[in-house]
Amino acid sequence: MLAGRMMDFPLTLTHFLERARTFFGRNEIVSRLPDKTLVRTTYADFYRRTSKLAGALARLGVRPGDRVATLSWNHQRHLEVYLGAPAMGAVVHTLNLRLHPNELGYIANHAEDKVVVVDRSLLPLWHKFADQVRSVRHVVVVPDCPAQGEATSAEIDYEELIAPEKDEYPWPTLDERSAAMICYTSGTTGNPKGVVYSHRSTVLHTLVVCNADTIGVREADTVLPVVPMFHAAAWGLPYAAVMAGSKLVFPGPHLDPPSLLDLIAAEKVTIAAGVPTIWLGILQLLDQHPGKWDLSAIRSTVIGGSAAPPALIDGFKSRHGIDVTHAWGMTETNPVGTLARVKHGLSQTDDATKLGCKASQGYAVPFVEQRHVGEDGQILPWDGETMGELEVRGPWVASSYFGGEGPDRFTEDGWFKTGDVVTIDREGYLRITDRSKDVIKSGGEWISSVALENALMSHPAVLEAAVFAARHPKWTERPLAAIVLKEGKTATKEELNAHIEAKFAKFWLPDDYVFMAQIPRTSTGKFLKTKLRELYGDHLEKQGSSA
Amino acid sequence: MLAGRMMDFPLTLTHFLERARTFFGRNEIVSRLPDKTLVRTTYADFYRRTSKLAGALARLGVRPGDRVATLSWNHQRHLEVYLGAPAMGAVVHTLNLRLHPNELGYIANHAEDKVVVVDRSLLPLWHKFADQVRSVRHVVVVPDCPAQGEATSAEIDYEELIAPEKDEYPWPTLDERSAAMICYTSGTTGNPKGVVYSHRSTVLHTLVVCNADTIGVREADTVLPVVPMFHAAAWGLPYAAVMAGSKLVFPGPHLDPPSLLDLIAAEKVTIAAGVPTIWLGILQLLDQHPGKWDLSAIRSTVIGGSAAPPALIDGFKSRHGIDVTHAWGMTETNPVGTLARVKHGLSQTDDATKLGCKASQGYAVPFVEQRHVGEDGQILPWDGETMGELEVRGPWVASSYFGGEGPDRFTEDGWFKTGDVVTIDREGYLRITDRSKDVIKSGGEWISSVALENALMSHPAVLEAAVFAARHPKWTERPLAAIVLKEGKTATKEELNAHIEAKFAKFWLPDDYVFMAQIPRTSTGKFLKTKLRELYGDHLEKQGSSA
Repeated sequence: MLAGRMMDFPLTLTHFLERARTFFGRNEIVSRLPDKTLVRTTYADFYRRTSKLAGALARLGVRPGDRVATLSWNHQRHLEVYLGAPAMGAVVHTLNLRLHPNELGYIANHAEDKVVVVDRSLLPLWHKFADQVRSVRHVVVVPDCPAQGEATSAEIDYEELIAPEKDEYPWPTLDERSAAMICYTSGTTGNPKGVVYSHRSTVLHTLVVCNADTIGVREADTVLPVVPMFHAAAWGLPYAAVMAGSKLVFPGPHLDPPSLLDLIAAEKVTIAAGVPTIWLGILQLLDQHPGKWDLSAIRSTVIGGSAAPPALIDGFKSRHGIDVTHAWGMTETNPVGTLARVKHGLSQTDDATKLGCKASQGYAVPFVEQRHVGEDGQILPWDGETMGELEVRGPWVASSYFGGEGPDRFTEDGWFKTGDVVTIDREGYLRITDRSKDVIKSGGEWISSVALENALMSHPAVLEAAVFAARHPKWTERPLAAIVLKEGKTATKEELNAHIEAKFAKFWLPDDYVFMAQIPRTSTGKFLKTKLRELYGDHLEKQGSSA
Repeated sequence: MLAGRMMDFPLTLTHFLERARTFFGRNEIVSRLPDKTLVRTTYADFYRRTSKLAGALARLGVRPGDRVATLSWNHQRHLEVYLGAPAMGAVVHTLNLRLHPNELGYIANHAEDKVVVVDRSLLPLWHKFADQVRSVRHVVVVPDCPAQGEATSAEIDYEELIAPEKDEYPWPTLDERSAAMICYTSGTTGNPKGVVYSHRSTVLHTLVVCNADTIGVREADTVLPVVPMFHAAAWGLPYAAVMAGSKLVFPGPHLDPPSLLDLIAAEKVTIAAGVPTIWLGILQLLDQHPGKWDLSAIRSTVIGGSAAPPALIDGFKSRHGIDVTHAWGMTETNPVGTLARVKHGLSQTDDATKLGCKASQGYAVPFVEQRHVGEDGQILPWDGETMGELEVRGPWVASSYFGGEGPDRFTEDGWFKTGDVVTIDREGYLRITDRSKDVIKSGGEWISSVALENALMSHPAVLEAAVFAARHPKWTERPLAAIVLKEGKTATKEELNAHIEAKFAKFWLPDDYVFMAQIPRTSTGKFLKTKLRELYGDHLEKQGSSA
């Protein structure tokens, strides 16, 4: 080979910081506190404060590679840790405040966090697991609300910590493959696993997020990351905004629909991103009060984290003129992997086809590659029908977990097994039909629990439906549906099957329904199907023996 | 440090090819031949043909790192070499068909080209320097026009060459730092020097070109690279279009304004890019025939290669509603380095300020860093006035020339000395005032030859003006102006000085004017100021002795 003769300029987050200071010093960062007041600063101020934070962390003894954890809502000081810790050589570790304290304790210990930055409003949560965390040397408290009683001697006020430091920090030259951030997955089975983003992976992800055909973050944008910064780096939006120099608006803890709509209208947000639950609530409120909020500045909303119903995407567009972009990703993919844009060649097709594209999980963004494989590892055809586990690869896809756990998620030929069961159509649009552990394998055929759930939840009496695999003597597994009925409503197995039978092959219909008051859930609100299988896995076998 | 745990996925051009095939197979590539017929194919076809080309090159004995030269206009087969040669491990070397045959011979020899791909319409040029090139083993002829007589036995027809090959090529896994392309600078002094782009530098450049705030190439775009593919990879647009999946329109050899306007209107071009000369001609024609061409599809035109006059940028916008984006770059910067966007915070200022931003060379795109330095190497203030040599660094900036020539262009602390003299204002907008070798150093003060030329060329009698340094016994150097008058017009030293004196400090005014029929030029059409200094360098000394 002949070597290129271009500069060995490392792809590190330090460049984002310097760029924001150099060109976008006047642009604003707005943070909403727990008491709903807004704090406004600029990138110039953010740079100074981030430099001071880096100086303070060094003073506390933070060394290259050390983990600096955050237990914080989305706000400017969280952003200062996001940039300052990695740029000085440390690693930011975002703790998910929605997890159970025991899980948080496990994760903080596993990551060996040295410093924890905690919102004062979240100190009660921190105190629930602080004792479990042996590695922590310093606790830095973000004064996001008035102090409740005396701070313990081990807890340092964030502002007091950074006050004595200089406005400039001698940022070191870093290896682009060094760690910048650790995020833990919230697995429904087994312990949470750590994903270690490098500077390189985050930079490349940011460049692609800013591509016009991805999210296309621009300097003129006002970006509202509703998605928490403790979820896969808020989908990379904070980094994208800092690189582009966009105005940033952080919502703090108030994520209810009216609070978000007030903020979007007041700050003229142009790009907002969040999970379907958030957008469902917002759509409902907009439908109830059309015209109440001026949302004319919005040019793009991004929805991801779990599959968004087509009615949500269509509702925003048809009733409120708001374009929703559906994206797919995971903690393990930094996180944006695919994005649902209607291809130019399909833009003249009928509305249903276009909605079908927009409601899919889309196709891979540049430098991500996608395939789906069958149970024997064979690569499956892109026919829009064949279901298989999605595998991806690319420079911002994990190659292993922190500590080497879960090696079975990485194939020998270099792909990551996502655990999502999908179909891929001829155009490359992928559609998630299940999690691989939830797909129902009936006599060699795969049945999508998600498709059945969506159909059942369209029945007027059904509040919630979770479809899961029950053991079956002949077919190995058969679908069973757990149903929560709306208050005062009734439905029978026959009625429910009649409601959905037109949509599915006969063998897809659930063998039986179990009615309950509440479906067991994980700490992040997902159906806990392992629990359902534990409780009802032998339901059909028992029926068989009693029949 | 703690290492990130993300995949070691190389940044290579192979991904662009695979991506175009996988997701954008139906999208079109249109090439205009020398006889003005249009040839239409698709990315699916392009992928097959590029694979076949790779197979054919391997069959010819092309090995990793070997140079495959092109002597071609912009067309699809040139694009096939652009992707196919690097993806199979070779290096594409674009020969600039506007150079003198002796220069071409020097360059092809220096790069040790093994294979040359030549347009049949350019065979006469090739035959002028073919004998000088000792390294070439195979000549592949692109049948862009009917054959003139018999082909020599050493010349292989492109289509016959690739016909027997397979539709798939086993693309090797490449090191992202391996060479992908060599481009030679056309220096006005000394021999041309080779810049060796790596896969990594080209990929990163492409990702940034596709950023919404840079050029923002999208799948829905129709991209017309007017800038030749033998000029710094046509500013990276062919790669950007392939990655994004955009429709590509190649103009072939017809670059006159009516031909370009016909093509832009017929193919509904959305992004076009070229040098100021091209756009000046187009603007003139549009002004003469307003409404003749439907240019409503255009959303962005990019202008670069040399400084564009503000009147050009303003004329397109104010008279034809077309947005022109001014960019700066060099062969050594892959090439996009800076881009002139009006910052959001300045978008509410007066029109003159905004035009001042748009007519500047802009500020650095992400991952390029800029500074300007004085003669003693001191870093200069960003005050909009102090002139100094622009230095840049970044992952797509050259770290050395092929063969190690010109080491003085690279600073010890890792910056590339561009040779452009600039001012940088507080916002970071840079404005080129000169080439460093042309700036006039008068008694310790710098005088911009470009600023004087622009002012002189606004005089109604002046067709062309070239200002250069003449030796001076007291001030070391003083400005002297070479003037070509318009036919039938006259002007005196006094009249010309009177025309410009309001704009400049008195010591900037040329000490004398020399009137001539023609200003000596380089092969690429730039003023050859070395020749002017050779002829008139002692003009003031002689005046002094005769006075």
